[in-house]
Amino acid sequence: MATGEFALIDELRRGLGQVEDDAAVIVGIGDDAAVLDCGGRRLVACTDTLVAGRHFFAELGADDLAWKALAVNLSDLAAMGAEPRWALLNLALPAGMATPAWRADFMRGWQELALPFNLRLVGGDTVACDGPLTVTVTALGLLAGDALLRSGAQVGDDLYVTGTLGDAALALELAFAERAGEAVEDLPGAATLEQCRRRPTPRVAFGQAAQRLGARCAQDVSDGFLADLHHILQASGVGARIDGDAIPLSPVLAGWVGDDWQRLLRTALTGGDDYELILAAPPALAVQLQTAAQQTQTPLQRVGSVLPAAAGLQLFWQGRRQDLPEHLGHQHVI
Amino acid sequence: MATGEFALIDELRRGLGQVEDDAAVIVGIGDDAAVLDCGGRRLVACTDTLVAGRHFFAELGADDLAWKALAVNLSDLAAMGAEPRWALLNLALPAGMATPAWRADFMRGWQELALPFNLRLVGGDTVACDGPLTVTVTALGLLAGDALLRSGAQVGDDLYVTGTLGDAALALELAFAERAGEAVEDLPGAATLEQCRRRPTPRVAFGQAAQRLGARCAQDVSDGFLADLHHILQASGVGARIDGDAIPLSPVLAGWVGDDWQRLLRTALTGGDDYELILAAPPALAVQLQTAAQQTQTPLQRVGSVLPAAAGLQLFWQGRRQDLPEHLGHQHVI
Repeated sequence: MATGEFALIDELRRGLGQVEDDAAVIVGIGDDAAVLDCGGRRLVACTDTLVAGRHFFAELGADDLAWKALAVNLSDLAAMGAEPRWALLNLALPAGMATPAWRADFMRGWQELALPFNLRLVGGDTVACDGPLTVTVTALGLLAGDALLRSGAQVGDDLYVTGTLGDAALALELAFAERAGEAVEDLPGAATLEQCRRRPTPRVAFGQAAQRLGARCAQDVSDGFLADLHHILQASGVGARIDGDAIPLSPVLAGWVGDDWQRLLRTALTGGDDYELILAAPPALAVQLQTAAQQTQTPLQRVGSVLPAAAGLQLFWQGRRQDLPEHLGHQHVI
Repeated sequence: MATGEFALIDELRRGLGQVEDDAAVIVGIGDDAAVLDCGGRRLVACTDTLVAGRHFFAELGADDLAWKALAVNLSDLAAMGAEPRWALLNLALPAGMATPAWRADFMRGWQELALPFNLRLVGGDTVACDGPLTVTVTALGLLAGDALLRSGAQVGDDLYVTGTLGDAALALELAFAERAGEAVEDLPGAATLEQCRRRPTPRVAFGQAAQRLGARCAQDVSDGFLADLHHILQASGVGARIDGDAIPLSPVLAGWVGDDWQRLLRTALTGGDDYELILAAPPALAVQLQTAAQQTQTPLQRVGSVLPAAAGLQLFWQGRRQDLPEHLGHQHVI
């Protein structure tokens, strides 16, 4: 994320995205995706751009790049509860980049993610550029009924997280250390972490199941758990209590974090790039959500509850309230 | 257009865009836009990426850039006969680019084109990059009935062109000459040409009218008239006869071309960036199409007719058949 990105987005939303007099725009700029009324099922549209050297290391394999460029978009659709259907792909390619091998790798990585969802590429644009490789994916999904919105959390709701948090952030930390020539500790399971970073699993099936069950609020974790939770709290006008001990960690990360609050904070709580879902839902849905999680093979952990706005964001760990960090999320340097 | 773009697109289409078993994809990769069945009106989706120094001069004003980035997409929707509804905007911004003045200019230029169509920005992504400014717009439109397709031309159809051709190409030629420090002839009306290049008029209203009248085939002129006509001929499996004397030229261009076939060829016939429509329609629609053209204030000129495939592409000028040029269109250098 560029410094000031939020300010620019806000300007664009106010300047170009006024949708008050367009009844077909059910959700405009400001959530994980737009929701549009075409007369049949609702259309859900989102887009993300990844730039080499900024959102991914330039030497990343084309297969992993394709996976990730699609995955971050499918994660946005999942956070709306939508069914992924189609995608458009824009490639700005430096000279000599798109060799036959690169193209074959790219298509293989894309299909490994797209095929299980029956998602089709229906358009795009490829251009040459003198700058870094830039990949933009626009994903289109369909939805019956109401989307999961950032603004849908209500006081009394349970807060959940899918999967585990922090793996991608620790993998990135190790990758940076290695690049800097620093001694990198020999961490059992580091390869697993790196796999999480390169090939995040968008929680598409669970997001759809939660939407069908009547949940109203979700957001995917891309900027960092606390930053993305903060988006929910702001949009919903509520506060929250988070139990740091309940944050789901992979065995590798749990071992590495141990009793170190700062390690937990900078990976699982603010690290970002997890592409897990934060969900807020009434306690009455708890059993059904856990059943849906099992059916979709999605780990689901309750991590806190929604409080009135005046309570703010309260963070507990080992029985004590903890100060909030200065930055709730990370900057998208890579 | 990067060398080999068509090959890459073809690979992507075959590799990632197989839509044979997705009945909701009415048109996939290979036309001006995709047509998708969401259950209500059909969704039409297209996307284009513009890179500074390649698709536009880096010093282009942000207002003209915004207009053009949106216009090239609206032109694709027009070529399908769709009603523009929504857009997504991806900006990859070099450091220091998005000053308040730049942002205000960008939004002004965008709105000057978008507001008359009631088109809303509903999503996007802004990222920082170390390369050239890159703008990607994805446009979404709606359509009742069948789209205007490249594959819709039939033997006996009349071929039409909207507006005038070649103005943008001559403006670009003059701009390049000026940049190269060459003596640029003092051409009356050069400012008009440059305005055509910077702010093309997507033929949205006429495209929709033609679709409603039952026309079946259109394509917008971005690569050059002959190149884009060739796309129609290939997709429809037909040939064509084009009367070069009937090609509509602005007074400025007509004066500059005079009796020089090479000048006509490299501007109006192969120059590109016109964003006019090529339309193929049965003679029975001729009167209705001309009426629709008048109602939408769109100049419409018959320039030839569709022949059987065996006839190939026949080009006439001043009563004589002319050789086809080696390149039917231009390369997207700027």
